[in-house]
Amino acid sequence: MRSLEVKNRTSVDDIRSLRLITAIKTPYLPDGRFDLEAYDSLMRMQIFNGAEGVIVGGTTGEGQLMSWDEHIMLIAHTVNCFGTTIKVIGNTGSNSTGEAIHATEQGFAVGMHAALHINPYYGKTSMQGLVSHFESVLSMGPTIIYNVPSRTGQDIPPSVIQTITQNPNMAGVKECMGNERIKGYVDQGIVIWSGNDDECHDSRWTFGATGVISVTSNLVPGLMKELMVQGQNLSLNSKLMPLMKWLFKEPNPIGLNTALAQLGVIRPVFRLPYVPLPLASRLEFVRIVEALGRENFVGDKDVQVLDDDDFTLVGRY
Amino acid sequence: MRSLEVKNRTSVDDIRSLRLITAIKTPYLPDGRFDLEAYDSLMRMQIFNGAEGVIVGGTTGEGQLMSWDEHIMLIAHTVNCFGTTIKVIGNTGSNSTGEAIHATEQGFAVGMHAALHINPYYGKTSMQGLVSHFESVLSMGPTIIYNVPSRTGQDIPPSVIQTITQNPNMAGVKECMGNERIKGYVDQGIVIWSGNDDECHDSRWTFGATGVISVTSNLVPGLMKELMVQGQNLSLNSKLMPLMKWLFKEPNPIGLNTALAQLGVIRPVFRLPYVPLPLASRLEFVRIVEALGRENFVGDKDVQVLDDDDFTLVGRY
Amino acid sequence: MRSLEVKNRTSVDDIRSLRLITAIKTPYLPDGRFDLEAYDSLMRMQIFNGAEGVIVGGTTGEGQLMSWDEHIMLIAHTVNCFGTTIKVIGNTGSNSTGEAIHATEQGFAVGMHAALHINPYYGKTSMQGLVSHFESVLSMGPTIIYNVPSRTGQDIPPSVIQTITQNPNMAGVKECMGNERIKGYVDQGIVIWSGNDDECHDSRWTFGATGVISVTSNLVPGLMKELMVQGQNLSLNSKLMPLMKWLFKEPNPIGLNTALAQLGVIRPVFRLPYVPLPLASRLEFVRIVEALGRENFVGDKDVQVLDDDDFTLVGRY
Amino acid sequence: MRSLEVKNRTSVDDIRSLRLITAIKTPYLPDGRFDLEAYDSLMRMQIFNGAEGVIVGGTTGEGQLMSWDEHIMLIAHTVNCFGTTIKVIGNTGSNSTGEAIHATEQGFAVGMHAALHINPYYGKTSMQGLVSHFESVLSMGPTIIYNVPSRTGQDIPPSVIQTITQNPNMAGVKECMGNERIKGYVDQGIVIWSGNDDECHDSRWTFGATGVISVTSNLVPGLMKELMVQGQNLSLNSKLMPLMKWLFKEPNPIGLNTALAQLGVIRPVFRLPYVPLPLASRLEFVRIVEALGRENFVGDKDVQVLDDDDFTLVGRY
Repeated sequence: MRSLEVKNRTSVDDIRSLRLITAIKTPYLPDGRFDLEAYDSLMRMQIFNGAEGVIVGGTTGEGQLMSWDEHIMLIAHTVNCFGTTIKVIGNTGSNSTGEAIHATEQGFAVGMHAALHINPYYGKTSMQGLVSHFESVLSMGPTIIYNVPSRTGQDIPPSVIQTITQNPNMAGVKECMGNERIKGYVDQGIVIWSGNDDECHDSRWTFGATGVISVTSNLVPGLMKELMVQGQNLSLNSKLMPLMKWLFKEPNPIGLNTALAQLGVIRPVFRLPYVPLPLASRLEFVRIVEALGRENFVGDKDVQVLDDDDFTLVGRY
Repeated sequence: MRSLEVKNRTSVDDIRSLRLITAIKTPYLPDGRFDLEAYDSLMRMQIFNGAEGVIVGGTTGEGQLMSWDEHIMLIAHTVNCFGTTIKVIGNTGSNSTGEAIHATEQGFAVGMHAALHINPYYGKTSMQGLVSHFESVLSMGPTIIYNVPSRTGQDIPPSVIQTITQNPNMAGVKECMGNERIKGYVDQGIVIWSGNDDECHDSRWTFGATGVISVTSNLVPGLMKELMVQGQNLSLNSKLMPLMKWLFKEPNPIGLNTALAQLGVIRPVFRLPYVPLPLASRLEFVRIVEALGRENFVGDKDVQVLDDDDFTLVGRY
Repeated sequence: MRSLEVKNRTSVDDIRSLRLITAIKTPYLPDGRFDLEAYDSLMRMQIFNGAEGVIVGGTTGEGQLMSWDEHIMLIAHTVNCFGTTIKVIGNTGSNSTGEAIHATEQGFAVGMHAALHINPYYGKTSMQGLVSHFESVLSMGPTIIYNVPSRTGQDIPPSVIQTITQNPNMAGVKECMGNERIKGYVDQGIVIWSGNDDECHDSRWTFGATGVISVTSNLVPGLMKELMVQGQNLSLNSKLMPLMKWLFKEPNPIGLNTALAQLGVIRPVFRLPYVPLPLASRLEFVRIVEALGRENFVGDKDVQVLDDDDFTLVGRY
Repeated sequence: MRSLEVKNRTSVDDIRSLRLITAIKTPYLPDGRFDLEAYDSLMRMQIFNGAEGVIVGGTTGEGQLMSWDEHIMLIAHTVNCFGTTIKVIGNTGSNSTGEAIHATEQGFAVGMHAALHINPYYGKTSMQGLVSHFESVLSMGPTIIYNVPSRTGQDIPPSVIQTITQNPNMAGVKECMGNERIKGYVDQGIVIWSGNDDECHDSRWTFGATGVISVTSNLVPGLMKELMVQGQNLSLNSKLMPLMKWLFKEPNPIGLNTALAQLGVIRPVFRLPYVPLPLASRLEFVRIVEALGRENFVGDKDVQVLDDDDFTLVGRY
């Protein structure tokens, strides 16, 4: 189902050069549908502050809570509106090879620049199964492989990465297994993005990572860009650490969703199973914003403390 | 789920000015998936020969045989590849109001310029139900209403059109009920496209229609453009009549699918319930091509007579 | 995907012997989901009053407004709850051959006794295409073919019926083309159900039809049973005529939905594009009930006149 | 969407008394569709050998590779064919609360006796989110909670179990976190099934578990029944250990799929990302069968060693 007409096709090398990629949040209307106006606004803030790519429908963007038609629509929408100014990487991975194949074909057909592929979480498989899974989709276009054993229950070991690296579409790895692992890949010439915000400064400047696929940059894109492109900066990294620690108190994107709502840039609507951080954490966020400077955060409203009643939790979506 | 960022938004007046809109064919691979390379090629031929708009996934494009995710993907793909040079009108209509709402929201989110909406075929409804159905989707963007009682089993009467014409997004009507009806609308200032190729010349030049939404233009886009823009031309109209009659011997797109396969511009693959025209008709098509001139048809291979065995019929798609 | 284990399998002859089959209404909750408790109650009334079969998700049951997973679920639910006391005929037809194949496989896998198949409405096809469409599904189990050109835009002619009648799974035809057509089939030994309530008495007693697939029997199942099994009864037929005429003032199931709500056996919830009959017709219904006798109608609450505000119309379902 | 008519409803206490529940394999046809005849045969063997319940579409049954309509269809099919002789527990869990709600409603509507619910794997959530997720579905019917952190990336801690145990529909926990954890629950009166075949003997006879939800019982249902109901039997447990170890050499159901194919009771068809165990392991399986006795395994063909070429791997399903 290949097309040679798709506009703004990106080479694998273009993808390999991205340093700040934001795993963009998907905001919702009170009935649980996407809030595209808020989404567009979040995207504009990313572009304005220097993000070079976005992951659409990643775990941060709650792809796991989308139907595939919503998911592909959001990829196509992002390409249409912003595809000439930022690289659009669709998370078309799945623990079902059948779904991954179908979604990746569709994502490239609507113009995404690259695919993000996860190993089959929850269902898991053998090493040979992992290779077969990735080979089913690698022919379709530039691909980033995502390794996050704390979510998937299974590490993608270097041996698998080395096998699939032979494929010319393999752009690199979003790696969450720490800087030792990252260094090993970099030494072999494999492009790496850190998948852990709190490690990304060292991954980049000490261990050779190319950049980060970041959650924190949803909130402070300018500071994260600075952290990734302007050289080692231990002081900035330290200043960001409290925010990063706060964001991951509970499984992502719980902290992020809470923070964006308090910054007034999204409606305070959660799709279950996500629920807001408790009041104490919401108060703490206000202090973190004040410490880092409101001007470094997205949006221009005063940061506010939301009450429990301000939030809408949607179960049927 | 509105977005103000979508690129190349088109005003209702832009839609109203289109004269040749092609109800574009969807070609298939042997396993029944879309053949996007062939599709792109058909689209380029349309643009090169002057079509100003396309209907994606109309009855001609076999939208009725698509899953909605395929359908929206094809709209998004068309917008991405060709949306700056031709108007992309997505057939996001359905006999289910719920599906029409969802598909139309998605179609506009991925950048389609206008929606084509049919009345609820097969299920049918009352006049008040018709109005409610159309009002559910008209707020979303420029809209063409499609009236084809021979398919839907129910006429959209002028009274319903007059009611919904109040909506500023209402661009006009694709009308198959003949030139009397068309004249009535034109007299009231309602923009009309003929839905019958064999009547469109007269609709345009005698009864005030703006143009045609055409099946025949898949084959001879240049001649259909001439017919619609260069003034009354009874001779050209007569010359085209045998082709038009041939195309509609069986319910569209049976003739069109057969013709495009014989012209070598698509693979000879049909999704059931469509089957090729019989051999006698296939032979007749070759004579029609010779009479009109091969150079007026799309593609550059010799027109050929296909055997029954050359066709692949796909039931599970 | 065949199974030989499915319980209560029914022979084609069993299906052929059914005289009163009700095209059962699907009632809704205020959010547009199915109201299974009301549905179960409607089913019990049918069984109690002698209906021998039901069509699940027909046009009366608004199958055209269901997702396929809802549709198959409702078939499975009906089989589970009532499959030992009434024949469950799933409307697994579609104008997409692919969808018809998939749905029919699923319907038989969950235990439906027979399938109802429509010709491809709206999209239409050639006679050879019709035969290919029906042959794609006939191997799966007992099948009733449904001919209703006023909805589909295309007549299934006797030649097509004669071809597919060769298939041993072909149980018969639900025919809406009148008694002449019916007589022709009966003379050839083809089993026929009338698809028009107002003609069914004569179809049965004068022209040889086996029975009726009825809308009216949703309201007065006992009287319709009497009409179909106790011999010619011109007086009863005349008495029922005003109700039948009233029911079809607007496209079915608009009248039926309105009537059941006024009888208090379903919530007054409509999925668009259906809207209630206007107040004048709602008043008329009360008089019809009084004339025929409340005790002949389903439910035991007083028939009431509902206000416009009593109805909920659901667009997103 | 509640129904009180569903047949063979089961009380929570009935579910709590089950000792051998098999996580039943889903076999495939060469094109990737379900092989219902083979499935029915596997089900009959389970019933004949004393399994008291089955999990339909669990991780063993590859629910993660099914569309929801396939999944619900398989639950409905199992209820229809076998629901009077064995308890049918549908795995209607999901990491999307929206999908879990919809699937669980549908599963109970088609007659499943209980639901199996997993915590949101991969996406994960906070403890409060876990409780909200489970509470969204617990009202619908008898429920088993499944804890398998090695797949989900997140433990369901006792505090969450204690909270949701208040719900009268909570039947118990399928626990994979070991016998210490199990003992703690048993001491509080919470019903437990072991989720680890190699521990289940001790869980049952030393730590108070009620039974096992087993993979191994797909192969040797009679022996597993004996292990669960006839009292402590260290010798049988030791005899089974090599088979259990072999089965979990690679992520389940890779071993199981390979074994059933070699026993000749399913076609050697895998949906990716699963691939067969390598030849050395396939040879080893034959020796295990011989050691345990062919007569203890399902099927009656000779166990055979399959070649790589004997297997069909399906990516598009």
